Amino acid sequence: MSLSAQYDPKNIFAKILSGDIPSVKVYEDERTLSFMDAFPQSKGHTLVIPKVPACNLFDIAQDDLQDLIVKTQTIGRAVRDALMPDGIRIAQFNGEPAGQTVFHIHFHVIPIWANATLGRHGGEMADINELNDLAAKIKAKL
Amino acid sequence: MSLSAQYDPKNIFAKILSGDIPSVKVYEDERTLSFMDAFPQSKGHTLVIPKVPACNLFDIAQDDLQDLIVKTQTIGRAVRDALMPDGIRIAQFNGEPAGQTVFHIHFHVIPIWANATLGRHGGEMADINELNDLAAKIKAKL
Repeated sequence: MSLSAQYDPKNIFAKILSGDIPSVKVYEDERTLSFMDAFPQSKGHTLVIPKVPACNLFDIAQDDLQDLIVKTQTIGRAVRDALMPDGIRIAQFNGEPAGQTVFHIHFHVIPIWANATLGRHGGEMADINELNDLAAKIKAKL
Repeated sequence: MSLSAQYDPKNIFAKILSGDIPSVKVYEDERTLSFMDAFPQSKGHTLVIPKVPACNLFDIAQDDLQDLIVKTQTIGRAVRDALMPDGIRIAQFNGEPAGQTVFHIHFHVIPIWANATLGRHGGEMADINELNDLAAKIKAKL
């Protein structure tokens, strides 16, 4: 899929937003949803997405992007306070060659521990109980 | 350096902002500077930084962060239009274990080509003539 993609209203995140596919939610408001990545690269890997349909950085409206990054900052702080990792990576991929697997814009919040190797993107599926536990810890810091 | 770092006014990007260290500039306004990464992970790797002193995502003011992400979107579009990569990664690292090497917040704009391997972060220094050429191409699309 190219960098000038058409939004597909049946993508997985659209289905998560509509409730057709379940997710382990961390935060929700009228513009934003945040939930645990089901294929985490590290413990606590969280996603932040807007409710507006946008494929990537290039077709999201400026105002929606500004809202999204502030929510990402808020979620990032909660992840930091809940899990106390050594570092946090924020990542946003545009186009399949860049690692984008779902074509609804999302910011990754990826906790990093000094002694742990980062899993590959879209690797193993997480244990649902562990995700629920992590989400509860993060929510408690919001 | 931890996630609650004190801003060091002598960090490399502070010196680039003050003009004490040269950089290959792509864009500048009253709030933002964008320049070519001197140790690029790929051809066209560009950085976007605010002029306010902030270490990372956690100590930058909301309004400054909103301005920074919109400038990153603008620079990202110019990189896309100038170099036509297959994808673009946006990355922002917090803390040394996450890959942060300069403790002045910055967004990476990293062009991705389907058939090229990404260099490691902070690997080889770029050729200055190549950086000047890339910066000219990006500036032409701004």
